[in-house]
Amino acid sequence: MASQSRQKSARVLVFSGGVGGAKLVWGLAQVLAPSQLVIVANTGDDFEHGGLQLSPDLDTLLYTLAGKANTVTGWGLEAESWNVMKALEGLGGETWFRLGDRDLATHLYRSQRLAQGDSLTEVTAALCRCHRVAHTLLPMTDDCLRTMVLTPEGELSFQQYFVREACRPRVLKLRFAGCERARPQPDWFELLASPSLKAVIVCPSNPFLSVDPILALPGVRAALRRSRAPVMAVSPIVAGQALRGPAARIMEQLGLRADALAVADHYHEWLDLFVLDQHDAGLAAAVRQLGLEVLITNTIMQGPQDKRQLAEILLAKVGLS
Amino acid sequence: MASQSRQKSARVLVFSGGVGGAKLVWGLAQVLAPSQLVIVANTGDDFEHGGLQLSPDLDTLLYTLAGKANTVTGWGLEAESWNVMKALEGLGGETWFRLGDRDLATHLYRSQRLAQGDSLTEVTAALCRCHRVAHTLLPMTDDCLRTMVLTPEGELSFQQYFVREACRPRVLKLRFAGCERARPQPDWFELLASPSLKAVIVCPSNPFLSVDPILALPGVRAALRRSRAPVMAVSPIVAGQALRGPAARIMEQLGLRADALAVADHYHEWLDLFVLDQHDAGLAAAVRQLGLEVLITNTIMQGPQDKRQLAEILLAKVGLS
Repeated sequence: MASQSRQKSARVLVFSGGVGGAKLVWGLAQVLAPSQLVIVANTGDDFEHGGLQLSPDLDTLLYTLAGKANTVTGWGLEAESWNVMKALEGLGGETWFRLGDRDLATHLYRSQRLAQGDSLTEVTAALCRCHRVAHTLLPMTDDCLRTMVLTPEGELSFQQYFVREACRPRVLKLRFAGCERARPQPDWFELLASPSLKAVIVCPSNPFLSVDPILALPGVRAALRRSRAPVMAVSPIVAGQALRGPAARIMEQLGLRADALAVADHYHEWLDLFVLDQHDAGLAAAVRQLGLEVLITNTIMQGPQDKRQLAEILLAKVGLS
Repeated sequence: MASQSRQKSARVLVFSGGVGGAKLVWGLAQVLAPSQLVIVANTGDDFEHGGLQLSPDLDTLLYTLAGKANTVTGWGLEAESWNVMKALEGLGGETWFRLGDRDLATHLYRSQRLAQGDSLTEVTAALCRCHRVAHTLLPMTDDCLRTMVLTPEGELSFQQYFVREACRPRVLKLRFAGCERARPQPDWFELLASPSLKAVIVCPSNPFLSVDPILALPGVRAALRRSRAPVMAVSPIVAGQALRGPAARIMEQLGLRADALAVADHYHEWLDLFVLDQHDAGLAAAVRQLGLEVLITNTIMQGPQDKRQLAEILLAKVGLS
């Protein structure tokens, strides 16, 4: 397989959740050739909905890399139609998870192929080919690992918590069901040990909901510690606020300070370099005390220029830009 | 439940497959009040497709009774849009089973509710309410019975044989997987023993693919023999030709004559009256030799008038029209 030989010599491995992470991934994809970049998506949010297999973070990354993401909603495809959803509403069906017509085709395609025994890796590669995404996008695992959110109302699946309940219930604890048996997808996991690898980049994604599921896969933390390539993470918390989503709120609910330092602390055992936004320059000394190198720059990615610039700054640290 | 009390006093129980049967069902629904008619749909053709639960005969009957069936294709909804299917084609997904956007909403709704533990009976009742279908439509069973087609190429599921392979493979044998454990849906099965029942009507549906699955449910043949209401069947074969679908071809492949007499023979153990088309008047004597009463009339239903007229003729036999 062409993609496998490509992955062996890739220079940059990136871990990402959905929208926030996808911005940096898009920037990296503008700077790095397809052969140089391998993108690993969180699949802890994957779920079955009315029989369909949904992989929200994979799809957000796919659509973003294809230049077809709906940047207004932050999920789904641009210029989408809603005929199925309108009819489902008319039937009184569950419509809390909004499925556009063309987005539904992605889920149907994935569900058909998974039902035929194809792996999520194979299905994702096929979707990338169809959408002309040349960079390698991989699921964190081909096995089932599901992020479960323990709340005072009981344990919810991630999507029930995130979409249906709009993050309202208090988070008591997160659990990654199936993490003992799930294996990291081998293409990227082997790359972690490859001498060609020049950097591992953890996107500014939710540390608890998007990054921790990847880290919960057996052997990943140890492999990050062993990796000769520097491991960098960009803080998803800027000035005490999550750039997107419920990260800050969840950190408070879990009894943590909602700031970039707490994220650095959460990551420090396997991290080499932490990227602070310039608004958080005051936290640099404390982050260095954790034994981490600090890079201070603008991490707020509002337009394509910001995304590309942050990617270039990170890659410059390892001589790739 | 209102529908249950209604079902106990219903006068007519009708067994139907998809399109051919739905014509007569539509006619009966024009003549009989909602409280008088209970329609039982074959669910041996039900299948899972890309994770969705499809019930083709139930949907054809639902859409037909709602006046929304696509009469050109014979399946799906009228004035349908195809955004999902077009996108799925673009992805190279399986599109042999054509799913219109609004039709897909029906399958999503059914799949969601079945996944929540609701029965197919409950889901069908809800769909009927949404589509303002007042007559009672029931699945033959809430359990799993699947029609399997043994061909020289191996055993195919019904939809693989019927839609994907367009009935090309030779039928060696039919098997109703799960029929030992499946129970007839109780509302209609109890009605079979009710003194209020005035007629059981077997629609001109495919005897082997649409009617036999209902008969394969434990106790149904015996209950038909015991029923005090006359059991009538309309021949789906007229002048040696199936009015619709592969019935005649399958009969030949199974070593039977493809004529109405062979259908009467197939049914005669539990049947009282057989309805022959006027083109087949010549077979009447032979059908009578099987111990059946014969009714000869026009059974070719081309327009609403034909459908209603055949319904009235059948009901007149039992004093209901």
